Amino acid sequence: MSVLVVGSAALDSIETPYGKVDDCLGGSAFFFAATASYFTPVKIVAVVGEDFPMQSIEFLKSRNVDLSGLEVAQGKTFRWGGVYHEDMNQRDTLFTHLNVFETFSPKIPAQVRNTPYVFLANIHPGLQLEVLSQVEDPKLVMLDTMNLWIDTDLTVLKQVLAKVDAVILNDQEARQITGELNVIKAAREVIKLGPETVIIKKGEHGAFIISEDDFFTLPAYPLESLYDPTGAGDSFAGGLIGYLSKVDDLSHQSFRRALVYGTITASFAVEKFSVDRLKDLTMVEIEERRRYLEEITKF
Amino acid sequence: MSVLVVGSAALDSIETPYGKVDDCLGGSAFFFAATASYFTPVKIVAVVGEDFPMQSIEFLKSRNVDLSGLEVAQGKTFRWGGVYHEDMNQRDTLFTHLNVFETFSPKIPAQVRNTPYVFLANIHPGLQLEVLSQVEDPKLVMLDTMNLWIDTDLTVLKQVLAKVDAVILNDQEARQITGELNVIKAAREVIKLGPETVIIKKGEHGAFIISEDDFFTLPAYPLESLYDPTGAGDSFAGGLIGYLSKVDDLSHQSFRRALVYGTITASFAVEKFSVDRLKDLTMVEIEERRRYLEEITKF
Repeated sequence: MSVLVVGSAALDSIETPYGKVDDCLGGSAFFFAATASYFTPVKIVAVVGEDFPMQSIEFLKSRNVDLSGLEVAQGKTFRWGGVYHEDMNQRDTLFTHLNVFETFSPKIPAQVRNTPYVFLANIHPGLQLEVLSQVEDPKLVMLDTMNLWIDTDLTVLKQVLAKVDAVILNDQEARQITGELNVIKAAREVIKLGPETVIIKKGEHGAFIISEDDFFTLPAYPLESLYDPTGAGDSFAGGLIGYLSKVDDLSHQSFRRALVYGTITASFAVEKFSVDRLKDLTMVEIEERRRYLEEITKF
Repeated sequence: MSVLVVGSAALDSIETPYGKVDDCLGGSAFFFAATASYFTPVKIVAVVGEDFPMQSIEFLKSRNVDLSGLEVAQGKTFRWGGVYHEDMNQRDTLFTHLNVFETFSPKIPAQVRNTPYVFLANIHPGLQLEVLSQVEDPKLVMLDTMNLWIDTDLTVLKQVLAKVDAVILNDQEARQITGELNVIKAAREVIKLGPETVIIKKGEHGAFIISEDDFFTLPAYPLESLYDPTGAGDSFAGGLIGYLSKVDDLSHQSFRRALVYGTITASFAVEKFSVDRLKDLTMVEIEERRRYLEEITKF
């Protein structure tokens, strides 16, 4: 099968206790494609400005990533700057320049509208609805979002939730949407809003999947050094949906394995700045970590 | 085999969003014994005051718990009062009346000095050293402690760490002892202080075991309601060491299974106030949860 991702394309400036980079490749669409493309063909719909360094995404072309939906608009590329402190779970945004992203209106090219797997990466829920009106009978639509939209556009977000098959949230977002403090109860409440499958990310504490009749909980891959957490969530989603598209099987067992692959691909993403670790990563390395995760979780 | 626990005996007054109790059975020795006794004979060394309601521990006698080391001292029993807020991870101590616990000097009765498994529950590290000087050639000594002693008596605590086989810490304590933020690195640093095996509890996020040549990570048992977290750590230790004593096997595989049982017994402990849920709990219920935990973690 193949996956369509509609999301952001950005140039990030990031500072962590380990270093500092300016204008490096960022954005949900690219992090997602960088990991999903290990498993399945990926099609990107996003927007960049005229200043976007196209050579920075050359590596995606070599991996069967279809960039025909990457619009180049007049103006500058979306830029985000942030700093992570010693506790890498906390970050401060230094600046957000939306630039061409401010007027982004996703146009799904005719030839990719029937892509069977769709990932609605984190963009305004109103735009996510626009995407849904353009795709043709997908097998699986998975949604991501963020605290900002939960704060400002919960009504629209709930309209999107009612139309998707699955959603990926972090624990705080699940609590924020439902007002329920217990994260398992919160996830069950999210199911009532529409999605059959709810995936909850807890960062260094792992993730779980919940649906009407299955529950699966997995610790995080144990990392002793974390270099740059930016894009971890999208790299996670890429491994997860990439795997589902590859096996084209939406059974509980398949979702469980997909969560394992998402956990593994995210664990690589945070080991270097930007998508750097995802450029030369090999499937052999992914499989090594999968086997190790199996080894350290069995009893 | 059998287990000796040296710890506190208390009467707790607790308020949670679900209710309020006064002067209920508490203390590390009793929570530990209440779960360990499902697996193995337990011997308690602790002190209570003349006001202690002996009928509150009748249920332990019926479970092969040896109370010959329970000293009744002149004065009042140790009392602790605390309140848990909606986020049950936070609690405020309302009062701590040490009473007879203030001058506790653990005396291990001659007939229990050769107990093969020893749990040094959370008491002053100086007293833990006194216990170690009295026991005779135990197979396994496991240590618990708390942030207070790490703050005030780290030098003495490190003397204890150098003499024990294993230690149970929560993630914050491991960071506090070592000054290392990454909890896996922190656990490795603790190994350098003496214990071969370090067990890190992360509350609702599970636990892991680390040693020179094994690593095992386990999610928490998924609980949708948490009634009273008091004693969760000691109930966890009880299931864990109780299982090790029962099988009398200190292999990595055995420690992994022990962590599973500790996770399960703790999950029951928090479902009612005090030790109430541990009074009528059955081994069948424990095994049911173990099977469920297996089911929701396999991939």
